Amino acid sequence: MDTNSVSPLPPMEEAMDRISEKSPPGTPNGIEMPPPPDEKRYEEDPDNAWNCCSWCEYLLIVILSTILLVGVLVLTLFWVMFYRDGFAWSESPKQQFNLHPILMIAGFVTLSGFSILIYRLCRCVKHIYVKLIHMFFHAVAIPCIALGFLSVFDSHEALQKVNFYSLHSWLGLVTMGMFVLQFVIGFFSFLVMLCCENKTYSCRSAMVPIHASLGLANFWLAIATSVTGLIEKERETVNETNVSQENKLIEHYITSAIGITLIFIGIIVTFAVRRSNAPASAKVYVTERI
Amino acid sequence: MDTNSVSPLPPMEEAMDRISEKSPPGTPNGIEMPPPPDEKRYEEDPDNAWNCCSWCEYLLIVILSTILLVGVLVLTLFWVMFYRDGFAWSESPKQQFNLHPILMIAGFVTLSGFSILIYRLCRCVKHIYVKLIHMFFHAVAIPCIALGFLSVFDSHEALQKVNFYSLHSWLGLVTMGMFVLQFVIGFFSFLVMLCCENKTYSCRSAMVPIHASLGLANFWLAIATSVTGLIEKERETVNETNVSQENKLIEHYITSAIGITLIFIGIIVTFAVRRSNAPASAKVYVTERI
Repeated sequence: MDTNSVSPLPPMEEAMDRISEKSPPGTPNGIEMPPPPDEKRYEEDPDNAWNCCSWCEYLLIVILSTILLVGVLVLTLFWVMFYRDGFAWSESPKQQFNLHPILMIAGFVTLSGFSILIYRLCRCVKHIYVKLIHMFFHAVAIPCIALGFLSVFDSHEALQKVNFYSLHSWLGLVTMGMFVLQFVIGFFSFLVMLCCENKTYSCRSAMVPIHASLGLANFWLAIATSVTGLIEKERETVNETNVSQENKLIEHYITSAIGITLIFIGIIVTFAVRRSNAPASAKVYVTERI
Repeated sequence: MDTNSVSPLPPMEEAMDRISEKSPPGTPNGIEMPPPPDEKRYEEDPDNAWNCCSWCEYLLIVILSTILLVGVLVLTLFWVMFYRDGFAWSESPKQQFNLHPILMIAGFVTLSGFSILIYRLCRCVKHIYVKLIHMFFHAVAIPCIALGFLSVFDSHEALQKVNFYSLHSWLGLVTMGMFVLQFVIGFFSFLVMLCCENKTYSCRSAMVPIHASLGLANFWLAIATSVTGLIEKERETVNETNVSQENKLIEHYITSAIGITLIFIGIIVTFAVRRSNAPASAKVYVTERI
């Protein structure tokens, strides 16, 4: 089968399938009896070799997603610094609020986006390292999200605004709840459970599609929440009297550009995740896939 | 391998993999030489038998997604009928505008959502019928979307509002563009190309993950666009003087409930698509999977 054009590396389930196919005869169920951890299994599959087209697509996804993920953060910083009076922690509630979009986009979009893409795109190194990098990026996102949440909470308190009233705040709460759930599930299922690798094999394999699908849903949820926040902020700006009409128009274009960039990030991440593009150095360490 | 807990039915790529594994010896590349169309291949795989847990999960997804997909449309109708003065075509621009949220949610969310779920969940009938139902639901969505677009366009013209200014309208344009692209690609790749089944096999198989990933991205894009539209409308309502404060609050809760329902629809569809739950009547007609 010419998997090159479809999926250069076999997806998780297929890899597991192959393990079960290679399990010794008489073993009724491959997943209950995983290969012993000391046995090294490499897939030297000629189908894994990439053609030129696959490489071009892979590079295009890597370059484009990097530009978009960094670009959206730079664009938000530019907007806040030049059109929203910059940021500070406790001096001014308005400036404290400005930390909210930067930190949330950094945590929920840029860091989480890189984390997801690295997990799916970087398979030339040992899989356990990829998992640790995936967890590291999400772990770095946690303080960003926590500070981003505190900044808006404190700022609302200082300005005596009602918290958790708008749709944006409700969506934000669902996003944060799902993020924490995903982090805890991921940490225990794919790292802590590795301590007892053989016995937890079927449980871990069952968790893979759940973690992957909820992770992608959470990423889109973060994008939808960010876009609603941008619109809420823009609608507030329209009523501000101390901002010139010209500046309002420029700000409108900047926030719209941030929104459109976020949407393209969502599309490219969904595309990259589903296509499971991976640098198929022909040797894939199958036993460490889960 | 106990696939029950992971994926009751093998995903598309695995099914194709099995075809290539079953291709006659000496065939260098299974995908270039698909099995002859008259040869019936059934997978009588004992792994496909479902356990009680898989059935419960399948039923839960089907029931929950049906409730949410119909519920969001009912909620939008309720909002428009009781709080936005109902709808009409040309008598009043305001009432004409009210058709926009109903038709767009009907086309982009309810019909598209059912279409995606039916494709992934309903595999007990012949695959070509599932494809036709999938196309039919999307085809019915087209007039809804076209009328929804016209209603807002006409209403803006009548009210002398600027078109394509807000982030919502830009996102809407991207969503509509991607929808048309997906429909055309899907129609030609998976239906027209079937006329010459054998020769187009590799092309069709290459299109599967692209169509699936862009379809999911487009669904989330539609959700994000809908949510931004709800927030824009709600912010406009806040400034209306002829609506009582109590009604504004109730309307706020209704639009927020629509937004939250949309988000849960996104999560459940992403989950259902990735988990590839299917009623695994043990006989799966593999050759018709693409």
